[in-house]
Amino acid sequence: MIADALADDLFAALCELPIFDSHTHIDPLAPAARSLDDLLGYHYYTELAHSAGMSHESLRADVDPRERCRAILSHVDRFDNTAQYAWLLEIARTYLGFDGDQLAAGDCNALFDSSLRVMAQLDWPAQVIAKTKLEKVFLTNAFDDPLTGFDRDFYVPCLRTDDLVFHLHEPATRERLHRCTGIEVGSWSTLRQAISQLFDRFVRAGARACAISLPPAFAPHVCYFDSPSQLADDLSYGVFWMLAELCNDYQLPFDLMIGVNRRVYPGGVHQGQDLFDQRTSLIQYAELFNAFPKVTFAVSVLSSAQNQELASYAWIFPNVFPHGHWWYSNIPAFIEQDLRARLQAVPKTKLLGYYSDAYKLEFVLPKFNMYRRILAKVLADDFVKPGRLNEVQAVDLGRQVLRGNAERLFCRKST
Amino acid sequence: MIADALADDLFAALCELPIFDSHTHIDPLAPAARSLDDLLGYHYYTELAHSAGMSHESLRADVDPRERCRAILSHVDRFDNTAQYAWLLEIARTYLGFDGDQLAAGDCNALFDSSLRVMAQLDWPAQVIAKTKLEKVFLTNAFDDPLTGFDRDFYVPCLRTDDLVFHLHEPATRERLHRCTGIEVGSWSTLRQAISQLFDRFVRAGARACAISLPPAFAPHVCYFDSPSQLADDLSYGVFWMLAELCNDYQLPFDLMIGVNRRVYPGGVHQGQDLFDQRTSLIQYAELFNAFPKVTFAVSVLSSAQNQELASYAWIFPNVFPHGHWWYSNIPAFIEQDLRARLQAVPKTKLLGYYSDAYKLEFVLPKFNMYRRILAKVLADDFVKPGRLNEVQAVDLGRQVLRGNAERLFCRKST
Amino acid sequence: MIADALADDLFAALCELPIFDSHTHIDPLAPAARSLDDLLGYHYYTELAHSAGMSHESLRADVDPRERCRAILSHVDRFDNTAQYAWLLEIARTYLGFDGDQLAAGDCNALFDSSLRVMAQLDWPAQVIAKTKLEKVFLTNAFDDPLTGFDRDFYVPCLRTDDLVFHLHEPATRERLHRCTGIEVGSWSTLRQAISQLFDRFVRAGARACAISLPPAFAPHVCYFDSPSQLADDLSYGVFWMLAELCNDYQLPFDLMIGVNRRVYPGGVHQGQDLFDQRTSLIQYAELFNAFPKVTFAVSVLSSAQNQELASYAWIFPNVFPHGHWWYSNIPAFIEQDLRARLQAVPKTKLLGYYSDAYKLEFVLPKFNMYRRILAKVLADDFVKPGRLNEVQAVDLGRQVLRGNAERLFCRKST
Repeated sequence: MIADALADDLFAALCELPIFDSHTHIDPLAPAARSLDDLLGYHYYTELAHSAGMSHESLRADVDPRERCRAILSHVDRFDNTAQYAWLLEIARTYLGFDGDQLAAGDCNALFDSSLRVMAQLDWPAQVIAKTKLEKVFLTNAFDDPLTGFDRDFYVPCLRTDDLVFHLHEPATRERLHRCTGIEVGSWSTLRQAISQLFDRFVRAGARACAISLPPAFAPHVCYFDSPSQLADDLSYGVFWMLAELCNDYQLPFDLMIGVNRRVYPGGVHQGQDLFDQRTSLIQYAELFNAFPKVTFAVSVLSSAQNQELASYAWIFPNVFPHGHWWYSNIPAFIEQDLRARLQAVPKTKLLGYYSDAYKLEFVLPKFNMYRRILAKVLADDFVKPGRLNEVQAVDLGRQVLRGNAERLFCRKST
Repeated sequence: MIADALADDLFAALCELPIFDSHTHIDPLAPAARSLDDLLGYHYYTELAHSAGMSHESLRADVDPRERCRAILSHVDRFDNTAQYAWLLEIARTYLGFDGDQLAAGDCNALFDSSLRVMAQLDWPAQVIAKTKLEKVFLTNAFDDPLTGFDRDFYVPCLRTDDLVFHLHEPATRERLHRCTGIEVGSWSTLRQAISQLFDRFVRAGARACAISLPPAFAPHVCYFDSPSQLADDLSYGVFWMLAELCNDYQLPFDLMIGVNRRVYPGGVHQGQDLFDQRTSLIQYAELFNAFPKVTFAVSVLSSAQNQELASYAWIFPNVFPHGHWWYSNIPAFIEQDLRARLQAVPKTKLLGYYSDAYKLEFVLPKFNMYRRILAKVLADDFVKPGRLNEVQAVDLGRQVLRGNAERLFCRKST
Repeated sequence: MIADALADDLFAALCELPIFDSHTHIDPLAPAARSLDDLLGYHYYTELAHSAGMSHESLRADVDPRERCRAILSHVDRFDNTAQYAWLLEIARTYLGFDGDQLAAGDCNALFDSSLRVMAQLDWPAQVIAKTKLEKVFLTNAFDDPLTGFDRDFYVPCLRTDDLVFHLHEPATRERLHRCTGIEVGSWSTLRQAISQLFDRFVRAGARACAISLPPAFAPHVCYFDSPSQLADDLSYGVFWMLAELCNDYQLPFDLMIGVNRRVYPGGVHQGQDLFDQRTSLIQYAELFNAFPKVTFAVSVLSSAQNQELASYAWIFPNVFPHGHWWYSNIPAFIEQDLRARLQAVPKTKLLGYYSDAYKLEFVLPKFNMYRRILAKVLADDFVKPGRLNEVQAVDLGRQVLRGNAERLFCRKST
């Protein structure tokens, strides 16, 4: 019952396109959910239920999964207004045979049983992939991930570097690095050797990006050090700069996910403790963007105010690319404003439209559909209705934003 | 002539609901205007007229009230584009028999005479309350307010604490505190005794909230002190923390109105001198929100950028509730964007939709109508048109946002 | 093919109005383009092409102008989604006889030839002025500009003061000042003498504004100094304050263009190296606004978050006027939100709607048309459809915003 027939048409056309998902947390060895518990365990639902009054008790590991689901579902009527709930409802309808209008505690048994039944199928991940028209899924791999046992053309490895940048002063991290590279890091040069080896291994395994999430106050600068036992802050900047150098050497795009403060609410649920501080600026990255003109920086931000900066920085810096709509900004009211600005101010060849950030394959479809609905609306309102593009051209622009640019940048394919 | 019939319908339905007004500055002993002068004396009109060129002369206390009104009305054609003007026009039409399209200086005598006539009626406040379908009005009471002489079930007391937090270093404030509690404050423990006594008295008088407005740089933290003669800043943090402890003990919601700088324009009209600094973050309150998980923090902010933070903090922290659209952000362009974000990202049980902030009862209706129009439009566009809710469900969601949550949180009523 | 017939009507009516362009960089001795090269050389196209992958090589001064144009046009299909491209297309259609749908490298010869042909006409600037219905164009003049050789009633001089405020510590700037005033600046009093002389000369030449662009961290305050050889920062504040004093004495509006960081991307194209930092606040100007109540501050900002501050500061301070939609914020998605806020919260007599910021006359029309389309939409949606204004009144409001206020403030004409 979408009011606008034109946007409706464009949405349908965009849904025909295979999905290129340039950032996820999917485990290629267990890519799909195994039960409703894997869906409702997604931090969006545990944190919204908790925010709306659910205690930690119901989430404890020793609670029966079905009862854990019932607990969350019994709170769903407190947050069924949210965008996140809408993803869940779409999953229930698409994959679990649900045909009601609203999810509720009373649906728990039917949904749980249905989930066990369909998800037990050997080809369940393949079914979800087919339904989603999913073509490629970027992973988030710890630096010591073995990267084996999965189709690396479909599940593209990505070197996640938060641990290296922010936890290298911890013995445990250095021990992990030692174990996986054989190098005992005691100096700048041994550290570089070790991290180069990681890049080498990842690139040989088909990795197509290096990624990191960064706190609002992070302001990288050229920074050398003699021994990595220095103060954590300086060490962070030194390692970060080294990663940029290696992205340059190995021609890997560098995914910067800017703005998150970790553990702002330590009493929150698992993965539901982080927030942000709007007082941050991309000018903190000017030295970086200038120093590495050949590195593609795929930049995600958390607020619309910083998105305005991002639209301007991407319009000026050849190596800055707006990337998706991340986390707290992945809400229609923000996506619409942020997307309109990007489409009006940034070269279309630089727009990396969307990624799902999903932990389980089932979430890729509803998240992309949310985005595609908004993209269709913006294309209709800002391009087709004013006569700038016809419908075919608008779908072409949508294709480029949704997947063409990502293919070119992450996979060096011309499209 | 509202274009959208669906939004129109929803607006009409929302207007049927009695109004629960969770934050006002109404004086229960003189709740309604006594003449046009009380309406035009609202700082919105004096400051807009002054901003548009009116001198202070016309506002002097010794000016005849009718002439003061004429002066302001003669500037109205300089700001009749504003949302604030629209409230005034609606009041003139609803209460003063005005049937023109635009207010002007030439209407002064008729409006003034009409105001004297209708407002002289003994039951005028009751008439306004009936017309407004007003059910409950929260007050803003100084800590030494006697809280007597009015119906405290309708006019709900609320302990306003700006003086305690920001002016306790002034002898006059301590003298007021002494006078009303009998306690001479000379130490942390006597201060706590005195403030506990205030809470006690307020709660016994039916108070349902503690409230304070805070400057953008305020960043509360646990803070103890020996004598309240310390530096103002430290004292402020100490008193503030104590208030949070007492809100916890007395189970009072704590209204935080975040972001105002006082006396930025000292040459402005009365109450028209304050502004804000966008460089502020809710992360400044993380320690507070963590320390008092059982206190409900009803948070108002002044900018859309901080509203994005608020939507995210309320989605994560169980004790953070977005509250209304305050002051400079109480403008349709901001309300619409802010409200959409809240409705899409925060559990619906936590949305404290709107309060009038009014000084006179007559303003409650046009302010709530402005909000209800926007709420109706957002419900239509984001929920009914995409098929997520039918009209009845949309009105239910509207009811919860408009009054259901406020009833539950402020009055501990389950709704 | 604009969907909304009402907005369409209003747009047509607004297009009938002569344009008052209160801020440009037009050279009155060469106001119009002389070839396509002058159009495509505008930094918006060189920087977007560069951002999308074009090297500096193609822009070198020794490249044949036609080939330089071909290089840029061959990148146009990478940024034909942008608002800036839409201006170019409108120019090609309006002035160069282009009748295609999209510009491309293949159009280079035809466009270039056409541009040479039409722009060689002696009355070409007059033709553009007539087509644009352009009535008045404010210039940006260096302090040592001779201000002669042009019609100063049409091309209104404006004293641009960035060099004085930010480069007076450089011998070259002081030498220029010496040359044009005959005064050797060695002290506060000689500096004041010299700058007073500039104001004198400019005002006698019909100058109607003093203008400056300011970095995000700028926070002016009363500041005196003995010798202008002091530290640059203090010197900047001292000179800036002196300019405000002289604006007061000479009754010149002071254009503040707030928020730009210079040379953030030194590797960028000419004029494509500057960006901004969202962490800035108008509170930094509170002391200034208070100190000079009689100076009209026409304020431009770079972000929507600061626009929210601007709407509030202009609602409170009688001497603060929102001015246009500057540079990175001159994008429809931002203009629409920023304009709605201003129209709803600021007295209409204070809204200085738009300026082109153009370097060549040809750009005035498409830029103003972009703004007028948005203004028409906002007037339709927020004023006519809700029944607040009829169409005639809405056009009147549009006229006041587009030119009435600018005429009154900059030219002291009552309108």
